[in-house]
Amino acid sequence: MTDLQLAKGVNDIPPQEKILTDEVMQIIKENFELSGFAPLETPLIERFETLSAKFAAGEASDALKEIFKLKDQGDRNLGLRFDLTVPLARFVAMNPTLKMPFKRYEMGPVFRDGPIKLGRTRQFWQCDADVIGSSSMLVEAELLSIFAAVFKKLNLPVIVKINNRKILNGILEQAGVKEKEKKEKAIIAIDKLDKIGKEGVSKELQERGCSKKQSDALFSFIKEGITLEELEQKLTAEEGKQGLAELKEVFSYLKVFGVTIVKFDVSLARGLAYYTGAVFEVFLQKSSITSSIGSGGRYDNLIGQFMGGNREVPAVGISFGLVPISEALKEKIKLEQIKEKKTPTQVLVVSINTLNESLRIVQELRNAGIASEIALGKGVSKNLDYANALGIPSVAIVGDDELKKKKVLLKDMTAGTEQLLSLREIVKRLKK
Amino acid sequence: MTDLQLAKGVNDIPPQEKILTDEVMQIIKENFELSGFAPLETPLIERFETLSAKFAAGEASDALKEIFKLKDQGDRNLGLRFDLTVPLARFVAMNPTLKMPFKRYEMGPVFRDGPIKLGRTRQFWQCDADVIGSSSMLVEAELLSIFAAVFKKLNLPVIVKINNRKILNGILEQAGVKEKEKKEKAIIAIDKLDKIGKEGVSKELQERGCSKKQSDALFSFIKEGITLEELEQKLTAEEGKQGLAELKEVFSYLKVFGVTIVKFDVSLARGLAYYTGAVFEVFLQKSSITSSIGSGGRYDNLIGQFMGGNREVPAVGISFGLVPISEALKEKIKLEQIKEKKTPTQVLVVSINTLNESLRIVQELRNAGIASEIALGKGVSKNLDYANALGIPSVAIVGDDELKKKKVLLKDMTAGTEQLLSLREIVKRLKK
Repeated sequence: MTDLQLAKGVNDIPPQEKILTDEVMQIIKENFELSGFAPLETPLIERFETLSAKFAAGEASDALKEIFKLKDQGDRNLGLRFDLTVPLARFVAMNPTLKMPFKRYEMGPVFRDGPIKLGRTRQFWQCDADVIGSSSMLVEAELLSIFAAVFKKLNLPVIVKINNRKILNGILEQAGVKEKEKKEKAIIAIDKLDKIGKEGVSKELQERGCSKKQSDALFSFIKEGITLEELEQKLTAEEGKQGLAELKEVFSYLKVFGVTIVKFDVSLARGLAYYTGAVFEVFLQKSSITSSIGSGGRYDNLIGQFMGGNREVPAVGISFGLVPISEALKEKIKLEQIKEKKTPTQVLVVSINTLNESLRIVQELRNAGIASEIALGKGVSKNLDYANALGIPSVAIVGDDELKKKKVLLKDMTAGTEQLLSLREIVKRLKK
Repeated sequence: MTDLQLAKGVNDIPPQEKILTDEVMQIIKENFELSGFAPLETPLIERFETLSAKFAAGEASDALKEIFKLKDQGDRNLGLRFDLTVPLARFVAMNPTLKMPFKRYEMGPVFRDGPIKLGRTRQFWQCDADVIGSSSMLVEAELLSIFAAVFKKLNLPVIVKINNRKILNGILEQAGVKEKEKKEKAIIAIDKLDKIGKEGVSKELQERGCSKKQSDALFSFIKEGITLEELEQKLTAEEGKQGLAELKEVFSYLKVFGVTIVKFDVSLARGLAYYTGAVFEVFLQKSSITSSIGSGGRYDNLIGQFMGGNREVPAVGISFGLVPISEALKEKIKLEQIKEKKTPTQVLVVSINTLNESLRIVQELRNAGIASEIALGKGVSKNLDYANALGIPSVAIVGDDELKKKKVLLKDMTAGTEQLLSLREIVKRLKK
């Protein structure tokens, strides 16, 4: 073997990064569970028929090309999942006795055989929570409060933009865009407002079959900073009024929860066609990362369509963007000059001809919940070098003289200081 | 869609099972980290060339057939990984500046496109910890003490059988089996002693080219219950003596650690050809599950061979069998008649026209770390039914009368009792 390489478009996540993403995932998991979401694990391999079925439900068809296809030895057509929503829909469809509402979360890798761009890999994790089977706006409020709790815990200031597809549909209706398909195309154009500006969107709207007059009418509603109350004065289309009422209900619950980071933004549309109600997207404040780090929305038709027939199965979900969140945390660590950890080890125990005593110390540290390792290198300086390279914060040197005093020499690798301490004192200090 | 199915040979892990396996994985992860193992995540997709390289290193070639093959849009030959050792070897090879010893763990799914048997699926998790770059027997002792700590925490009584390939090689040498290849074949036969008995092994040894005399000589060493000390009296072959010395060193460290579940078993061989030193295998005591629930060993040649050249890169690893461990826990839960949980929710809060107060209560419970949900169903009985179906242990009913007394009615769903309690009392009770 002379040429060991990764497959194109996928990455190793080395310890220094995996420690960080594990922490993020743990916080997300804890908050999903605190809100009563149960874990589900679906397989990474699905029948190709199942994966391609979603596209009948309105998804852009070039995503279909990005499915990794494979066959088993029985020549069955299979594929790697490209999101967690299709496996969820399949699971719900296959388990008709499932108690509703079904609150589940899933965290796992998904795959897209697409072009490689910066920050976009062919395998990446998704962290989703969805509620199936409830039309209550409480669910939107609960999911938004999970965004608030997680980003507070991560110490990342964010705002969550919220809108409602019914509001956009109402605005389009009132501006004279009546056909369903034209509305969907217009929504995709409006979604680009942040990127291509008012002129750009206006041009695109006209390319997609809206008149100049319709486009102008739209922009009398879609104005930066317009509030729900201002819209209420102008919006008379029935569907639009329903969307406004839904968002007001969501905001009333958020007020009770004390969640203040959610802001109405009439231009938020989200690209995917399947949303039917509230849509949300999370952005960092004070960061160079401008892409969204979380998103979600209500999709009351998708699962029913997927299951066949015209059954409506209400559903709302959120998704955390693990890659941009990790990038944001790395940026923060750099700014705050926190040393990168390459290991969970808190203390390396170095024996100087005291192996058995050192092993006992290692074990007592572990019993106290302190991650520790026995030094495997030969000689003190080699082991100090190892601790340094891995970012292990403390080294305990166990020599005969120190043991006689029932003490150990604890070196603080960051400060460069050292101190003779009893094991009890070490545990107390490192426990902090 | 009328025919939604899983791909053949893979499973959904529904909440009641995923909650259990998550707990197991968390305990394994905590213990890996307590011993200073750092997490690594390698991709699920590797170049086919990388995956098939291992087989040059002595692996049976029918495993090659079980690799799920795929291609990307650039027509590159890829495959799904079938274990975590190959990606580890590739990672080590691609990162020559990695500080040694490299202590890493990885937990993730692997894939085998093989025949479906009971308890064997085409996608399953592996949980591995390996130390690369140290020849010290301390590593064996550390890894064995992780087995001890994890199974103690899981409350599963186990024994860990240990042997050393060098002992087996020494015995074979002394019995007159000199060729390397013949030794390997004989070891595979000896590995079956538990399953096919002495006669069966003897027959297979002769089929594999050993004489009757050699086979008899072997069985003068390979006797149930033979101790290291007894072997020491008889075994004179140099390699065998080295193996004995290694195991004695491991046992001396285990004694310091207070680990008593490790037992020498001269017939333990393990099927894989790549082991070079200690081998271990974990079995449940008092259980209907007789397959091993963990295993490992030293493989000093594999990584070097994989990297090219004849470099020796010492390595030792252990692996937890997540599926049989979960099966054992399910068996225990059944025996002890513990109710299956389908959700992490500890309390369902049901509002009777007190929605805002109920939401505040939900939030206070969550702030106290108690997983709770607001009831989304209509009517108290429907919500009690929901709690019952999901195994939620408590329901808090929040009515106006109770609120006036600053109390909430807490229903214990297991005992069927109810009590008026303050929020503080509820937190205190559920925190236990």
